Amino acid sequence: MSSVSTSAAAAKGLDGVVVASTGISQVFGNEGRLVYRGYSIGQLAGKATFEEVCHLLWKGHLPNQVELDEIRSMMSARRALPEAVLATIKAMPASTDPMDDLRTGASAIGAALPISGPATYEQALTLTAMFPTIVATFDRLRKGKEPIAPRADLSHAANYLYMLTGNIPHESHVKSLDTYLVLLADHGMNASTFTARVIASTESDICSAVVGGIGALKGPLHGGAPALVMDMLDQIGAQNNIKPWIDRALDGHIKLMGFGHRVYKTTDPRAEILRTMAQQSSTPEFFALARGTEEYALEELHRRKSDQRLYTNVEFYSAAVLNSVGLDRDLFPSTFAISRVSGWTAHVLEQMVGNRLIRPQSEYTGRTDLVFTPVSERP
Amino acid sequence: MSSVSTSAAAAKGLDGVVVASTGISQVFGNEGRLVYRGYSIGQLAGKATFEEVCHLLWKGHLPNQVELDEIRSMMSARRALPEAVLATIKAMPASTDPMDDLRTGASAIGAALPISGPATYEQALTLTAMFPTIVATFDRLRKGKEPIAPRADLSHAANYLYMLTGNIPHESHVKSLDTYLVLLADHGMNASTFTARVIASTESDICSAVVGGIGALKGPLHGGAPALVMDMLDQIGAQNNIKPWIDRALDGHIKLMGFGHRVYKTTDPRAEILRTMAQQSSTPEFFALARGTEEYALEELHRRKSDQRLYTNVEFYSAAVLNSVGLDRDLFPSTFAISRVSGWTAHVLEQMVGNRLIRPQSEYTGRTDLVFTPVSERP
Repeated sequence: MSSVSTSAAAAKGLDGVVVASTGISQVFGNEGRLVYRGYSIGQLAGKATFEEVCHLLWKGHLPNQVELDEIRSMMSARRALPEAVLATIKAMPASTDPMDDLRTGASAIGAALPISGPATYEQALTLTAMFPTIVATFDRLRKGKEPIAPRADLSHAANYLYMLTGNIPHESHVKSLDTYLVLLADHGMNASTFTARVIASTESDICSAVVGGIGALKGPLHGGAPALVMDMLDQIGAQNNIKPWIDRALDGHIKLMGFGHRVYKTTDPRAEILRTMAQQSSTPEFFALARGTEEYALEELHRRKSDQRLYTNVEFYSAAVLNSVGLDRDLFPSTFAISRVSGWTAHVLEQMVGNRLIRPQSEYTGRTDLVFTPVSERP
Repeated sequence: MSSVSTSAAAAKGLDGVVVASTGISQVFGNEGRLVYRGYSIGQLAGKATFEEVCHLLWKGHLPNQVELDEIRSMMSARRALPEAVLATIKAMPASTDPMDDLRTGASAIGAALPISGPATYEQALTLTAMFPTIVATFDRLRKGKEPIAPRADLSHAANYLYMLTGNIPHESHVKSLDTYLVLLADHGMNASTFTARVIASTESDICSAVVGGIGALKGPLHGGAPALVMDMLDQIGAQNNIKPWIDRALDGHIKLMGFGHRVYKTTDPRAEILRTMAQQSSTPEFFALARGTEEYALEELHRRKSDQRLYTNVEFYSAAVLNSVGLDRDLFPSTFAISRVSGWTAHVLEQMVGNRLIRPQSEYTGRTDLVFTPVSERP
């Protein structure tokens, strides 16, 4: 059993503080390794589908053919939104941030079904099944188009792209997106997963936990920043502008998007796999720009900040992959959530086993001896 | 600076782990003392209004007359709900748990205004101002009645009761509810406040943080249980049934509602103040039943579980007070949230100062060496 000594200062970000035992996933930051239920991510990416990985995370093992048929049909049967959720999404102004829409729509699922009591596998599956429908429905409505009903004969990834456009997506796009969904499904005790577990620890319902997870994922320090990678690549624009742009940014102490991570002290294994996907599904020009930017940025970061170990993180090529399959960049965080909800729900199910309320302490820095005076006597 | 040693087991509930420095409030569990910004809760309860306490929590000091006039008029001017929030509440089925409605309606505020970027005082104030309107609007709609527009000339507490009934409330009810709102406004690093701070630490917005807080507060181990106190008192029914009912419950190892707390190892100071409020606003019969139940339960708990220090917690007389001012018992948790949102938002504003992402670790209990096999080869 690991043991760490914490002080108020050390624990501020809970760095290194172990808050739970989990059998779901682990990040081995020094080795650049991510494991889901015993499988290194490289064992799963490009081989297992998102539905198989959902089964792995929720049930603890990859499904056999009977189990896979069952989870596929259960998920596809639960994609349509309850009327109250649809009405909620329709109430959102077209200018709504898609993460605000997803947070509100997901919360409405809890009200509409309703979702209450101890978390169940079926609730986990239902929430995960409905997330793409919330995002696609809102995206269609904000563009003045009719929402497209889900198609049960398509996979989770393919159906999401189908509901966005109304067209059966290219197989290469489905493969890229499905791999992305597998790669982002879980990642140890990240902030949104931790949020979901804190909420679940009060014995609140799984929908409340997931809604909290969306709120945390929205933050730019967590899942809210991949679009900024695309903004950066747009600003760089061409290969011959990579060096001057990055030099200028680093000279001006501007943070480069897509590099560095709290836990990884070497290359994020997901970034390596996503790089391959990006190469397959992007135009050669775009990939050359992204790859050139990555290489020069790493070279300069290592030269200028040799005390830090900054490597390409998952956001960099996530942005490239999601862009290449045709997603608007303001849908990147919601698409991250479409993947991560599988992990959040697995963690909620796990938290319920031998649950203990997560209730930490704070260090009080204020006075304790003030005496009330009526408003008329206050300075 | 305090220092604790934690292991995976010890940190499971983060008991005693200091996760933040705060100047907002502190619970001194061994002394039975709660302090807001330097004032013991007994200094404030019954003297300061909820609006004054909001100012205290957000700005760090009690308002002078000019500041009080300003915060009152700012809050009363922000009570009406944006159209999209109203439409969202109207979309909720009448059977919706009021906490699910509040979570969804609060989330819709973030979409409708919208709320984004670094948290501000005005956002904190706006969310707090709108909470009673969400709860009262839904309560009217589910009863088949028209929602009642807020009245700017009423206090926060009085207007909440007014929006529920359409009648100007009794002064004694306003006083009881206002005192309740003051007492529940903040409470150190409780699970919902911690949830809000974890979400805020990703640099997500204050609405996302508050929505997470609602989800955590909904849990029966946090704010979701006060109605169960009323259910217990209903079942006891009469003074002569107190002893047999409690004896039977304890013999059957049934947990009595309203006793015990993670942090307090003596009487919760809020329970003492709420007892007085309950005595003033309840019928003599009801108060005698509640008081008699409390006294006999404590006597038996101390006799049977002499190793534990179980005292009356805030839920016991919260239930009695909220019942006495005429609230349906399924509105108790939402009314708790109407108070606590002031604390959540104060903590989010504080978290933003020198923020660091809250990203803990987990202990992995699974394997790491499994090899992928295609579905056709799985057992």
